[in-house]
This record gives sequence, structure tokens and C-alpha cells, in this order.
Amino acid sequence: MAVYTHVEPDDLAALVSRYDIGTVLSCKGIAEGVENSNFLLETTGGRFILTLYEKRVSEKDLPFFVDLLTHLADSGCPVPAMLRDREGAAIQRISGRAACVIQFLPGISLTHPTPAQCEAAGAALGAMHRALEGYGGTRENSMGHRHWRSVAQATGDLDQVLPDLQAIVDAELAHLDAHWPSGLPAHVIHADLFPDNVLMLGDRVTGLIDFYFAASDFRAYDLVITHASWAFSVDGRHCDPARAQALMRGYASEITLTAAEAAALPLLARGASLRFLLTRAHDWVHTPADALVTRKDPSPFLARLQRYSAADAAGLFAFA
Amino acid sequence: MAVYTHVEPDDLAALVSRYDIGTVLSCKGIAEGVENSNFLLETTGGRFILTLYEKRVSEKDLPFFVDLLTHLADSGCPVPAMLRDREGAAIQRISGRAACVIQFLPGISLTHPTPAQCEAAGAALGAMHRALEGYGGTRENSMGHRHWRSVAQATGDLDQVLPDLQAIVDAELAHLDAHWPSGLPAHVIHADLFPDNVLMLGDRVTGLIDFYFAASDFRAYDLVITHASWAFSVDGRHCDPARAQALMRGYASEITLTAAEAAALPLLARGASLRFLLTRAHDWVHTPADALVTRKDPSPFLARLQRYSAADAAGLFAFA
Repeated sequence: MAVYTHVEPDDLAALVSRYDIGTVLSCKGIAEGVENSNFLLETTGGRFILTLYEKRVSEKDLPFFVDLLTHLADSGCPVPAMLRDREGAAIQRISGRAACVIQFLPGISLTHPTPAQCEAAGAALGAMHRALEGYGGTRENSMGHRHWRSVAQATGDLDQVLPDLQAIVDAELAHLDAHWPSGLPAHVIHADLFPDNVLMLGDRVTGLIDFYFAASDFRAYDLVITHASWAFSVDGRHCDPARAQALMRGYASEITLTAAEAAALPLLARGASLRFLLTRAHDWVHTPADALVTRKDPSPFLARLQRYSAADAAGLFAFA
Repeated sequence: MAVYTHVEPDDLAALVSRYDIGTVLSCKGIAEGVENSNFLLETTGGRFILTLYEKRVSEKDLPFFVDLLTHLADSGCPVPAMLRDREGAAIQRISGRAACVIQFLPGISLTHPTPAQCEAAGAALGAMHRALEGYGGTRENSMGHRHWRSVAQATGDLDQVLPDLQAIVDAELAHLDAHWPSGLPAHVIHADLFPDNVLMLGDRVTGLIDFYFAASDFRAYDLVITHASWAFSVDGRHCDPARAQALMRGYASEITLTAAEAAALPLLARGASLRFLLTRAHDWVHTPADALVTRKDPSPFLARLQRYSAADAAGLFAFA
């Protein structure tokens, strides 16, 4: 959540001149996106986001993101597509970084979504999944199920993060390995559709953003990540039935889950909770306390893991 | 250079509804302003800056800034005036902070100004001084000459910052106290018109911003602060004659300095150099290494102090 890289005005003017978007009127670093440097760029031709890719987004993955967002935008999903310059190139270089000029989308991120907003988010997720059903791109989900054990190991002693966390994680990894489903409908998914990554105006979704975790996985796994991040109290202890049902209802307006998917939701949600618990625990241990990035508390995802492990967890996914 | 305070969408909508600027379209935290939280706010009525005042801008000073910027905007200076709501109030509250909705100005800050851009900056400074000649507002300059000794004392042992700095500062304070002029033309000045605080498009000044150090002092002291920050190499060792002359020429197109002012420039510039040397040294010692704010190196202002102390320093202010 910081601007890392400085852009010289002359370099910016040269970059902008590659596109048919006029000349620079203003360029301000914005506190958005954890891993990249982002600028709100205004030209005589409109407003854009200029993103410079820092270390965590690999340059070799950029063509995948460009193609994915082009496909989604062409399918009518409200995603920030990368602009192409007069020669058709979307990926540029500035200040020693790979960079893209990206469509600006209106809207603001919610912190306390209402049920109506959860329904809209669920519908937008479902519409995106429909657009991705026939999409040919693939990308290994480096944050997916088969990688969680190595994230846990790389974190070190988990008990330094939360009491008894090592035993809890070991048991959960064993359970998920034994029961993780196979053969569910899969394609590229967003994989991180938290409320921060959805722009809204009132009850209308105006933007799905930050696709840098997008990868190939079960679509139902994308749904439970959204469920875990939209329907719970901040501490992760309480799932709000009104928000959860609205999210599921919105999704169901676009996608009819198979019986196997519906049955797998609680287990997939345990996996999603473990994924964010582990990556937050890893960052907690490995991010210096003086880093510019705010460390996120892992414990709300331990609370979700426990809630999704309860005997009545299937009821959290009802949409009566 | 960070967003400190979160704004809830509902609170933002309520704030915006006090003005005749339509409804919120987007609101993004920007990395501008060291001491406040700043957001680029877009509504159906236009673009604005939303500033939330954090600890370093005292709430009791806000009416001074509102009045000053209103006066300058009314005088035709390109400054970001605070908007007034339907009841005439410019100062609001949101997220527990005093806040203002401020005019958005186009333009970008330069890092390597050309002589033509220095001339435009000098002329904009001069035009602002003309607009302030008859202005009735006053504010104690808490960063002015009479406060430097206490800044030095509050820093502690200056030799921990740079070798021999304590003796250099003690000698300089004695010299400045003995020779500091009196009776020069004075009014409210910007007092911090570094290139970061000037927005430009090409060679045209589109904005003079960040008035939170504005206070009553000699106008010639404002000029030397601008000289010190626009005409030197990054390390402070070299004054570029082309940029310095252009700056002085631009200023002279608006203001004719008195003989006493012209004679005092080298001494005032030593004072300006000491002011930034001391405040940077103070922040260097007192800012934790893990703070979000980047500490600025004091040594380029020691280099300027030495350059302005040389026998030929008067020549740095020529504008042949």
C-alpha cells in the first residue's frame, strides 16, 4: 500500500505518447495495490491507472494477465483492461520496470457490504465465471491446495504466530489432503475477490480489480474465497446469514453449481481459510515490523477455518 | 507520504452531500502530502482533493489556511482553494479528523526543472507575493529565524548526524543572530516552495500547493528558499547559474527587490539552508527508522549553507 517507484515527467510523457490518449495533465501515486506502484494518470484523453510491476508480479506472467483481462473486458465484465499502444503492445517499460496503462474504473471499495451489495458481488463473480468457462488460458495456482504444506513449512514454527497453530495446521492439512475433491468444474479464477477488490457505486458493481492472484482452479473455490471475505464479521467468528445468503443467491443467478460442487463447499471453504491463514502467518513472520506494508492479522482466518469445520457448516451456503 | 486514515463510504457520501458537487464516483488515497491523509475524490460534479488533517497541522490553524488560500485564489493565483459547503463552512469532520474538500489542480511536480521552468516558478512566486502585499492575515513562523536555536537544542548532539555539525551550527547561529536583518518587506509567505510543491504542465505553472508552512516572514526569505531548492544539484554542492538566473529573472518580472533585500540575499539564504539542515537533522534523529515517513538526508543543506557562505555568494543571485 505504497508507491515504491518514482516516474520522471519526461519518461511519462514519452510513454503516454505511444498511445492515442493525448498528453499528460496529472499523475498522482495512489495507495492501492499492495505489490505494485500505481498512479492515477490523467491525460487530455481521459483517466487511466499506470501500474509499474514490482518484484512480486513476475514479468513473465504479464502476458497472461493482459490476455485474461482483455478476454474478460471483451466479454462485458467490468475489469480494468490494459490499453494497447499504436503497435499493439500492452506491456511497456518505465523507470526500469515493466508497466501497463490500464482503464480507469469508477467506484469505491466497501468495508461493510450490505446484503444487497453481497448479492451484486456474487452475481458479478458468477458472470465472470460464465465468461471464463470457455477461456483457454491457464496458470498454475501457486497459492492453491497443493502448495499449502510448503507455505506452512516456509513459515517456520507456527506456534510463534498463534498458540497451538502448528498442531491445528498439521491436522487440517492431513484432512484436506485426504478429502480434497477432484474433477470439479475448473478454469481461471480470480482467487482473491475480497471486498477491497470490488469497486461499487451504491449496489452496482463497477469494477472487479487486482487479478494478480488469478490462476487455474475450481470455480467453487473462487466462490468460497468470496464467501469467506464478504459474509463474516471482521474477527472471522460470525458468518452473517443475510450476507451469505445474498452472495449465494447472486452467484446462483448466473451459475448453477453441480451437486458435487455444492457438497464440496464446506471443505473448499476450510481450504480457503487455511490458505489465507497460512499466507498471513508467513508474512507475519517474514515481514519486518518496519516494512512499509501493513501485516495482516492471521487469526480471523483461523476463526473462519473453525466455523467452516463445524458440523452445521453446509448451512452457511444456503440461499433460500 | 502515506494514507493514514480510512474513510468509510457512507461517511464520504454524507460529507459530499453537504456541497453542490453531485455524488461520489471514486475516492483513492494518494501518496501526496507528508503530514495529512489525501484522497483524490471524483464526483459527478468534478475532481477534488479530500484532505484529512493529521497531528502535524493544528486544527486551530485551519481557518488561517482557508482564508489565505481563498485570498490567493480570488487574486488569480493557481492555488488549491478549499470549497465551502452550502452553509459556507470549509472545515468539516470525517473519520474523527478535521477535513477539507479542495479544488483539484492539473499538473505534475518536476524533479529536474529546466531554466525555463525555474523562470516560470520565480514568476509565480513573485505574482503570489504581489497578491500578499496587502493581505491582512498573519501567522507566527514557527520554523523562522528566532526558532532555529531551539530546533538545534531539541535535536540533541548534532555530531551524531554529521561530523563537526555541532560546531558548524553554533557558529552559524551566532553569525545569523548578529547579522539577521530587520525591516525588510514582510507578509505571509509560502516558506516551502520546493519543486514538489509546484505543479507544472510544460513550462507553465498550474499549481502552487502545500501551504501548511505558510507564515509571516520576509518575502526575500521566501525567495531564497525557492532559490535553494530549485537551482542546486541534488547533493547541494553546485548552484546551476542558468537555473538560478532564470529563477531570479522570473521573480524580478513581478517584484523589484529593495536594495536592502538584494544585499541581504546571501545571509537569508544561509538562514534558509540552516533551517532545512536543522529540521532534517531533527527528524533524522527523532524519526524511528521503521516509520512510514522517509527521512530526508540533511547533508545537501549543509552543502548549500557552505556555498551561500562563500565570498562570491552574492553572484548566485544575479539575473543578468
